[in-house]
Amino acid sequence: MAWQRPDSRQFNELRPISFVREFTKFAPGSVLTKCGDTQVLCTVTIQPGVPKFLEGTGKGWLTAEYRMLPGATVQRQPRELMKLSGRTQEIQRLIGRSLRASLDFKALGEYTITVDADVLQADAGTRTASITGGYVALADALNNMVKMGKLEKSPLCHQIAAISVGVIEGEPFLDLNYIEDVAAEVDFNIVMNEELNIIEVQGTAEERSFSRHQLNRILDLGEKGIQELLAAQVK
Amino acid sequence: MAWQRPDSRQFNELRPISFVREFTKFAPGSVLTKCGDTQVLCTVTIQPGVPKFLEGTGKGWLTAEYRMLPGATVQRQPRELMKLSGRTQEIQRLIGRSLRASLDFKALGEYTITVDADVLQADAGTRTASITGGYVALADALNNMVKMGKLEKSPLCHQIAAISVGVIEGEPFLDLNYIEDVAAEVDFNIVMNEELNIIEVQGTAEERSFSRHQLNRILDLGEKGIQELLAAQVK
Amino acid sequence: MAWQRPDSRQFNELRPISFVREFTKFAPGSVLTKCGDTQVLCTVTIQPGVPKFLEGTGKGWLTAEYRMLPGATVQRQPRELMKLSGRTQEIQRLIGRSLRASLDFKALGEYTITVDADVLQADAGTRTASITGGYVALADALNNMVKMGKLEKSPLCHQIAAISVGVIEGEPFLDLNYIEDVAAEVDFNIVMNEELNIIEVQGTAEERSFSRHQLNRILDLGEKGIQELLAAQVK
Amino acid sequence: MAWQRPDSRQFNELRPISFVREFTKFAPGSVLTKCGDTQVLCTVTIQPGVPKFLEGTGKGWLTAEYRMLPGATVQRQPRELMKLSGRTQEIQRLIGRSLRASLDFKALGEYTITVDADVLQADAGTRTASITGGYVALADALNNMVKMGKLEKSPLCHQIAAISVGVIEGEPFLDLNYIEDVAAEVDFNIVMNEELNIIEVQGTAEERSFSRHQLNRILDLGEKGIQELLAAQVK
Amino acid sequence: MAWQRPDSRQFNELRPISFVREFTKFAPGSVLTKCGDTQVLCTVTIQPGVPKFLEGTGKGWLTAEYRMLPGATVQRQPRELMKLSGRTQEIQRLIGRSLRASLDFKALGEYTITVDADVLQADAGTRTASITGGYVALADALNNMVKMGKLEKSPLCHQIAAISVGVIEGEPFLDLNYIEDVAAEVDFNIVMNEELNIIEVQGTAEERSFSRHQLNRILDLGEKGIQELLAAQVK
Amino acid sequence: MAWQRPDSRQFNELRPISFVREFTKFAPGSVLTKCGDTQVLCTVTIQPGVPKFLEGTGKGWLTAEYRMLPGATVQRQPRELMKLSGRTQEIQRLIGRSLRASLDFKALGEYTITVDADVLQADAGTRTASITGGYVALADALNNMVKMGKLEKSPLCHQIAAISVGVIEGEPFLDLNYIEDVAAEVDFNIVMNEELNIIEVQGTAEERSFSRHQLNRILDLGEKGIQELLAAQVK
Repeated sequence: MAWQRPDSRQFNELRPISFVREFTKFAPGSVLTKCGDTQVLCTVTIQPGVPKFLEGTGKGWLTAEYRMLPGATVQRQPRELMKLSGRTQEIQRLIGRSLRASLDFKALGEYTITVDADVLQADAGTRTASITGGYVALADALNNMVKMGKLEKSPLCHQIAAISVGVIEGEPFLDLNYIEDVAAEVDFNIVMNEELNIIEVQGTAEERSFSRHQLNRILDLGEKGIQELLAAQVK
Repeated sequence: MAWQRPDSRQFNELRPISFVREFTKFAPGSVLTKCGDTQVLCTVTIQPGVPKFLEGTGKGWLTAEYRMLPGATVQRQPRELMKLSGRTQEIQRLIGRSLRASLDFKALGEYTITVDADVLQADAGTRTASITGGYVALADALNNMVKMGKLEKSPLCHQIAAISVGVIEGEPFLDLNYIEDVAAEVDFNIVMNEELNIIEVQGTAEERSFSRHQLNRILDLGEKGIQELLAAQVK
Repeated sequence: MAWQRPDSRQFNELRPISFVREFTKFAPGSVLTKCGDTQVLCTVTIQPGVPKFLEGTGKGWLTAEYRMLPGATVQRQPRELMKLSGRTQEIQRLIGRSLRASLDFKALGEYTITVDADVLQADAGTRTASITGGYVALADALNNMVKMGKLEKSPLCHQIAAISVGVIEGEPFLDLNYIEDVAAEVDFNIVMNEELNIIEVQGTAEERSFSRHQLNRILDLGEKGIQELLAAQVK
Repeated sequence: MAWQRPDSRQFNELRPISFVREFTKFAPGSVLTKCGDTQVLCTVTIQPGVPKFLEGTGKGWLTAEYRMLPGATVQRQPRELMKLSGRTQEIQRLIGRSLRASLDFKALGEYTITVDADVLQADAGTRTASITGGYVALADALNNMVKMGKLEKSPLCHQIAAISVGVIEGEPFLDLNYIEDVAAEVDFNIVMNEELNIIEVQGTAEERSFSRHQLNRILDLGEKGIQELLAAQVK
Repeated sequence: MAWQRPDSRQFNELRPISFVREFTKFAPGSVLTKCGDTQVLCTVTIQPGVPKFLEGTGKGWLTAEYRMLPGATVQRQPRELMKLSGRTQEIQRLIGRSLRASLDFKALGEYTITVDADVLQADAGTRTASITGGYVALADALNNMVKMGKLEKSPLCHQIAAISVGVIEGEPFLDLNYIEDVAAEVDFNIVMNEELNIIEVQGTAEERSFSRHQLNRILDLGEKGIQELLAAQVK
Repeated sequence: MAWQRPDSRQFNELRPISFVREFTKFAPGSVLTKCGDTQVLCTVTIQPGVPKFLEGTGKGWLTAEYRMLPGATVQRQPRELMKLSGRTQEIQRLIGRSLRASLDFKALGEYTITVDADVLQADAGTRTASITGGYVALADALNNMVKMGKLEKSPLCHQIAAISVGVIEGEPFLDLNYIEDVAAEVDFNIVMNEELNIIEVQGTAEERSFSRHQLNRILDLGEKGIQELLAAQVK
């Protein structure tokens, strides 16, 4: 007997996705991203100047920070104070790499964009929601910069979205929630652009392994999910 | 000529206050508190166990954490990572002391309550909003504990609210916003309970001093503001 | 029956205060301040340069550091190494703000004054002793700078002193020692200048609250104590 | 014209691989792993006890630490002292996950295995060399435990190896060295077991993207390389 | 022509030494040690319990902490906060080892003695003054413990003192002050007990080297100085 | 009955010493130093620039870092991450001071030399092996700089070697291994140059003391050992 999804979704069905734009008013881009019960506040700020290794190149940069608020989970989680966990660092590096793939840094010029992804409520898929919602906040922030005359035109050149796929009892499922995430034997995160080309793919078999055949089915599901997310972003 | 408030308020007029309860769903108390453009997410969690100095006393404890999200201000503020600033520590200690004054810890038993105050948008008054909104989240969390049968009755024994008063050009004003806060020569925070007795009073003259007479006028304003906040909390 | 003070003082009586000036010889200001059994070594040093936010303004700055030596209390207290406690940070920020109120920073020019308050022996009231004694060390240091020709005239424009008042069994007492401090239900620190105008007031009700009427009696006591400290400083 | 490999290898040719076993004598497993000019010292130690979350489960654990010695690269690299970089954390988490996939932790019992991968010389591919060589050191360490009578039989149940594939000028190449790594637009790391099932796959497009077709060619190359590594490990 | 000592001392003459006992009243041993212009406050506290490696052995332990107050030198020195300098660690380890050589830890039982050496004024020789004065504070603390009935008899079994010797322009001098310390090409610290047996000897040639012959003359001077210090301690 | 050395050496016999030069290829100096079972990888790198206090003086600098790999001992030792132990700091300061005594910094010019001593296998004497082997790596690195035309001539002006001597059961022994080190009541480290002049001498009596007579016998042994090491280095 196959895995019954706790929320009765089809194996290839996304959770409801929504983007509350201008959620806060001081940051140029601010989007409360909801994927089912996962809620991530993505704010984007843009400041003059770049890290040392880019100074004088005329190119800009984008960096990301990711945190869970302590009350985001059923069990309160302590804040990471003296050092970031490996998990947090991996996630914020992934968000940064993924969203950098959307930009023409030459066109941006020597500005540094910071994407802050703060998880207000966590029901799995927080890193992919951060990328998908972070893209919307990034687009808003760049458009605001153009409107305010600080940039001539938006340096955005690719649309980016991300989704997770998991394997439960040997079968792939799209966009796992927390209960499913715990049950999954393989955990995949896929980042693609508007041409469905791959920006990043990360797949881990916890305690198991998976075949090339399974990998292809996982990527098929991921493509389907990302197509829908790309459409939702455009709205 | 007297100071004209940027939002045309009377000298003794609060900003609009609202409490969005159950803003997130995993924490037993979660209130998005809005005081004008200041927005603080207050979440309250309750866990068995107490700090070492209370073990075996049968008494509970309450502690608070306060943070600004980086995008809460017009200029992005870096997260406090390796150490908390003195300002942050002062504020979270104040929130903790103030809300502890609302509780009968003997009635709570050996539980630790954590109040997380995360500022999503900052337009001054974040520490007093954290206390006033934290009280509402605390009451919700305790009621939920009673409903779930984890506590026999709520250990809440005092209602608590807090407000700021500032002196600008020699005159006191209630509930300053950011523009006023920068202009103020004296900065006061007042915490009171439902009997208008004082829990905490902190007043600082930045670059100036103030007289006993001014102090009394400040406290009069504070009392008026707190009366209105107490009424808003009850609703 | 009223509270009997352990050292038989009147409710409005200070502990003996003394200032051993030039206690060490390398710092321009060095005062061993004794308030009863509380002993704080206040040293003041002055260095060219100011923090970033003041560079180029022609204005100076004053900052304070506060520490307890481990042997200052009956029970040895570990040094604060990796991070300062919230208590230490609050105290050193209070000392800094209070003593900045004594200076005309324009007249000082771009120098940074550091006040180090090291508690050699602690019997309560260490933060107010640090301010009262720090003022004496500050005046000495500035006079030495003038004598050495490094400053044209002392930028000191206000005299500053500080005292604590506590409420025990509902009644206010001046200048608590450690035994009284533990017994107090309200703890007040008051900083005033030579005109008895208020620089800072901080009052906390530990587990209780207090009325406007009590607050006035506390401030009356504080005024009396500070008048005597101001006189002692002048000597 | 196609990319000419700096060391004249075929596009699908590994660098020479060798394992110097028992390189040091105090650790039960110690293998100096050489992949071309990349040299990683993998030592494996086994200690009684497990992390908190496994206590009492009867299951063991494996964790990995990864570091570069400062002289491993042409430009000396400072040691990571106060905190580990995101890169180091990602790598050591990858090594740990990959080698955990080789073990039956129930058969191991409540022991913790630590794999230390110290890079003595770095010419790219250090993380995959750490996994491939770490597996050999792990097998040695477990065999030694069996010989010494501390374990009844080795809990090793899968053979694990890892390799990198990169895309340069649109074409995939196996096992990049440093010069190639800098030139690559896509960077892939693949971990497989003896059945050529996938344990982990991580692919990143730096500044570009890649198609499903390219992904398949990358995985084909990876499979070929891992088959050869598995054979070399067995020797 | 030979080096003229800035304070006209003979080459083999100590600076004036004095011990102000019971300098503070809460620690069982508290000695303000003055060697010329060097002033170190040595406080000794004794607490039940020992470090892990001694638990259950019936033996006690002694540990030392050393710090310079920021105002101890002409140029203010920042406090060591996030980490101790190598110099500070070396010194406090030396003080600890030296004073441990005075004790019969079996006779002490499972207590931990902490020696805090806080330099109030620094004119070179602070580490040797810490040892010599720390011994006096240690003896006082142990005698107080005996008087208070907490120990049957003092576990002190050796008298310990320490002194520095330096080589300036090829010639050895006893007990250098700061000006001499800067000029010295060889810097020696010698710790001996009441039988003039050596507990520790550390000699460093900064930018030079020294011969066995010079070493012997240095040790002769050290012996003479330590004999005088031992006599001063007894008084 | 006298102490029988576990490896049957004479009391004045060194362990076999060897230097594997060019052990790694990217650092200009890289020597795997073996003293019996102690193995230290010494790599030397040279970079333009000097610490602040030397800028503009035309003089260079040398600094050293010392670490034990976790698998270097029978019991795995955790890496020192957040802070270095006092022992590690003492050792790396000693290595630095000792090797600085070999150089004419004026002739070097404003370069900073870093000596990294990484202990791969530890059987006592790691600090002296680091100095003796570090000297060989330093000479190689400087010769390489001369060959590459980056320095006109090598600034090496003294040959440096170091050895340990210990006292066991009252008798001195040369070059202790780990078993002997644990048994020793006195622990000595001696650094000398090619004229057998002393650069540094550090002797500690753990729980005991030693006489001037013993000190002389210790130094005699040390001289003999260092003569042999100097000869081995030259080869």
